[in-house]
Amino acid sequence: MDTAALNLLWSDQLMDGLAAAGVRRIVLSPGSRSTPLVLAVNRHPKLRHWQHPDERSAAFFALGLAIHQRQPVALIATSGSAPAHWLAATIEANRSHVPLILLSADRPPGLQACGSNQTIDQVHLFGTQVRGFYQAGTPTDDPQALAHIRRLGIQATHQALWPAPGPVHINLAFQEPLTPHRIAQRTLPGPSVPTSHSPVQPDPRQLQRLARVMISGRGLIVCGPMPQDAKFPSAVTRLAGQLNCPLLADPLSGLRFGSHDHSRLISRYDSFLGNDHFRHGARPDWVLRFGAAPVSKHLLEYLKWPDIHLVLCAPWGDWPDPLHQTGEMVRAAPALLCNALSDACTASETQTWLQGFTQAESAIADITAPCESATPREQVVIEELIDTLPDDSLLFSGNSLPIRQLDSWSGQAAKRLRIIANRGASGIDGNVSTLLGLAAASEQPVVGLLGDLTFFHDMNGLLFARELDAVIIVFNNDGGGIFGLLPQAELETFEQHWLMPTHLDFTHTARLYALEHYRIERQDQFRPALRKALSTGGVTLIEIMLDRKLSLFAQSRYRQMADLKLSS
Amino acid sequence: MDTAALNLLWSDQLMDGLAAAGVRRIVLSPGSRSTPLVLAVNRHPKLRHWQHPDERSAAFFALGLAIHQRQPVALIATSGSAPAHWLAATIEANRSHVPLILLSADRPPGLQACGSNQTIDQVHLFGTQVRGFYQAGTPTDDPQALAHIRRLGIQATHQALWPAPGPVHINLAFQEPLTPHRIAQRTLPGPSVPTSHSPVQPDPRQLQRLARVMISGRGLIVCGPMPQDAKFPSAVTRLAGQLNCPLLADPLSGLRFGSHDHSRLISRYDSFLGNDHFRHGARPDWVLRFGAAPVSKHLLEYLKWPDIHLVLCAPWGDWPDPLHQTGEMVRAAPALLCNALSDACTASETQTWLQGFTQAESAIADITAPCESATPREQVVIEELIDTLPDDSLLFSGNSLPIRQLDSWSGQAAKRLRIIANRGASGIDGNVSTLLGLAAASEQPVVGLLGDLTFFHDMNGLLFARELDAVIIVFNNDGGGIFGLLPQAELETFEQHWLMPTHLDFTHTARLYALEHYRIERQDQFRPALRKALSTGGVTLIEIMLDRKLSLFAQSRYRQMADLKLSS
Repeated sequence: MDTAALNLLWSDQLMDGLAAAGVRRIVLSPGSRSTPLVLAVNRHPKLRHWQHPDERSAAFFALGLAIHQRQPVALIATSGSAPAHWLAATIEANRSHVPLILLSADRPPGLQACGSNQTIDQVHLFGTQVRGFYQAGTPTDDPQALAHIRRLGIQATHQALWPAPGPVHINLAFQEPLTPHRIAQRTLPGPSVPTSHSPVQPDPRQLQRLARVMISGRGLIVCGPMPQDAKFPSAVTRLAGQLNCPLLADPLSGLRFGSHDHSRLISRYDSFLGNDHFRHGARPDWVLRFGAAPVSKHLLEYLKWPDIHLVLCAPWGDWPDPLHQTGEMVRAAPALLCNALSDACTASETQTWLQGFTQAESAIADITAPCESATPREQVVIEELIDTLPDDSLLFSGNSLPIRQLDSWSGQAAKRLRIIANRGASGIDGNVSTLLGLAAASEQPVVGLLGDLTFFHDMNGLLFARELDAVIIVFNNDGGGIFGLLPQAELETFEQHWLMPTHLDFTHTARLYALEHYRIERQDQFRPALRKALSTGGVTLIEIMLDRKLSLFAQSRYRQMADLKLSS
Repeated sequence: MDTAALNLLWSDQLMDGLAAAGVRRIVLSPGSRSTPLVLAVNRHPKLRHWQHPDERSAAFFALGLAIHQRQPVALIATSGSAPAHWLAATIEANRSHVPLILLSADRPPGLQACGSNQTIDQVHLFGTQVRGFYQAGTPTDDPQALAHIRRLGIQATHQALWPAPGPVHINLAFQEPLTPHRIAQRTLPGPSVPTSHSPVQPDPRQLQRLARVMISGRGLIVCGPMPQDAKFPSAVTRLAGQLNCPLLADPLSGLRFGSHDHSRLISRYDSFLGNDHFRHGARPDWVLRFGAAPVSKHLLEYLKWPDIHLVLCAPWGDWPDPLHQTGEMVRAAPALLCNALSDACTASETQTWLQGFTQAESAIADITAPCESATPREQVVIEELIDTLPDDSLLFSGNSLPIRQLDSWSGQAAKRLRIIANRGASGIDGNVSTLLGLAAASEQPVVGLLGDLTFFHDMNGLLFARELDAVIIVFNNDGGGIFGLLPQAELETFEQHWLMPTHLDFTHTARLYALEHYRIERQDQFRPALRKALSTGGVTLIEIMLDRKLSLFAQSRYRQMADLKLSS
């Protein structure tokens, strides 16, 4: 068999391995060395693919595809610096536990380290950011070797999902020629080896210890950013009911919206936990934390009580506790832990403790800073957005300001709405592509809320827009508005070095990518534009023209009004 | 001293170390954690800075700044995935020996590996792609520690330049607070520790061996891509004169243009080394190679003669020989080796051997495939471009097709013209930013020649355009035209998976970034547009609208005509 045919046979086996373990979606970038992989994707009956010439956008799009149902997605790029553009998305996938399979084409060993063109050291290119790295061997038709490369596809997929979901890298060297003269029949798909999601059961002795702690004092459940788990909302709200304790839900916990019990659910804590009047006497005896560190800085500050018993449920072996105060580390699936604790506990605490939280939540709920100006304001945009989105929408939030503003103002409701963000490394990178990847994976309306620097950083991602439906809302305050809230705002070179405004008119961006475009300069233009965007196909860019000073003023007025209400 | 003041003091010392070793230019991206570094840059009297919100563009811009005179340039980014976007430019800097100093801000050890926000494992983030990695300690006012961090700045700069120029990474962790309340006076700049560029002298015994080989048979000097060295052109042309041998000069060798002796210089070899008639009997006894592997595939193929003596001059310890046939590896500075060999050798070979090459060169020189159409053609564009560019221009070439087309058609001339490309990893990435970095570093006209996918990949780089003068010529054949020359062109899904056309109208890109824009649809529009662009300030985009089929046809007609001439 000639080399090109061997390369293809080998790639067929790898792709069939990926498919056998459940991979269905692949994102390609162009190149020559990756030809055998692309040919194999193209003729595998179970694989669907997307493509993008910028590998960075391709990787974040794959991340978006994979986040939706936490299903593994593969990436293919050619040799050289091409796969290097995957690094930022790989870091995000690592930190936020998204299954990605990175397939980098490479030049064969005989062309390594000798100045050959488009050849770099791709071994362990992603360092400690991947769950596993495999250097695939040289394509051959030896049946054992073919069985090995197929198994590697299966194994990498399993490893990307369990025990800790994340990225896995396979580096594949191909000798020329890469394009077969005649493309032979591919072998029939082999048997599947489906992935399992064996949940980790809580340790029974630990459970007894925990139950004793939780029924003996005032407690709090805190749910940070976590992957969607259909069983978790009912399990954790049942536990909060048994313990009669407040349940503080991060915007990325999946708990603020949905038909589960909301009676003990607290979403506006960022606006009252910083209040001295509230905090006085609101010291919990224990805290049970799920998920990653919450977005709210006030919540993190609040949790710094000395001598409280902090229980952290972390099913993946990592230690997500930036406060360094975990007293009990529980290795268990969150829903299983909730159910087991619910069975073991009944509340001992009086209503008063819970009431402090629920009363603060409702006291805050109606506050909107008065404003004479018609200029759009973030709080109002967010409230109207949440109100307008239909059931089952996905709301993708940018980092920096949008996620913090959603944290403050999303509220909670029985509406089915899921909020997603790249909160692993919390970068301003790749957000457009992630959002469009979500849109490609979902049948439901997908809406993104991004800052203008975040939008700028990944404009290349808009090339994906052509065949997708999505709404991208950009809070345009011309620069990194978050820095206006930080001490850097006082510096002389603040605007130049921290705000870094681009002064770009995104009208031209919208034209370049044929997006519908609305520039919202008055608050009352927003809701009609959003309704229109949701009802038409394609990608719409809704640019909210903000006044940075007004935003700061409104935000500080809001805090004052909240403080006033809480003190009364 | 409070932490913010310590952070700044520490950063002052580092910046002063960089400056003491000769760093003058820094490229910043926005962020909070990097605040002490940015403040220190801002108040150091010797440091000039640029900025860009996309760290990928920032890094390639730094590469362009550094290439011009091979002077070290530093990068600053905040913690998290931000520095990850430097990876592709770091790979290019590594492979093409460009001195970059990567300064990544990080969170302190106490916030590592515990799920803290915007915190990733930044230790050895660039793996084997850097000359050195340093984990800076915790900022303190201990005089020894301050001396250490200053020295680290000096050391990193020296290491980025010698013995093998390339990137060096320093990771700097800062504890909050990051912004001092009052910014104290900075300490006076310390003494400088200038870098040295000690050239490597050839080994005298090796020199004798080489001289014996070179005077005893027919030889060839081949110069591949190499950094500019003002002494090299005269040294190598003198050596070619002494040996009376052909000197084959890659477009990136710095030899095709300039006032040195051109009498033995061959630039059109790609068009005749593949010709059987020429190759027959044109076997050299020895080949002396300088620089990286040449762009021309025909040249690489031609060099595969069995049993020729291949001498490779590689001053940096790497082994740039993808043909695996080096018989003598010379560790010496190229100009020094040429001079030493010139002193030791006189020609023994008759004129005939040299004449074969010079006659082929001039036989090819006038060929242009006839064409009825007014549509622009690459060969004519390149010839007019070379002809129109004023003395001392810098011509930056994209990879993929442009560099190969320049290789075929640039010719040679006494005009002072320098051709530069990112030929380390030969990616289609970061080219716009590199080109604009060159423009920022140079007083002379800077013109880029890029394919449309290459242009698309780094459109974000255009944000640098505002204060610069440059001309960007885009060969727009809507997709990866190079694949049309490869076997992949025969594949059914060729257009979709290899060509990957974006179908974008770059008129909107030009408007977004306020570029002058010409769409060239007829060949005769090109030269006036180029002249206009060169005479006005700012950045001009000259888009050459190509017809992919016509280009292929013209290219194959050119080959036919060349073969015919060589056989007659």
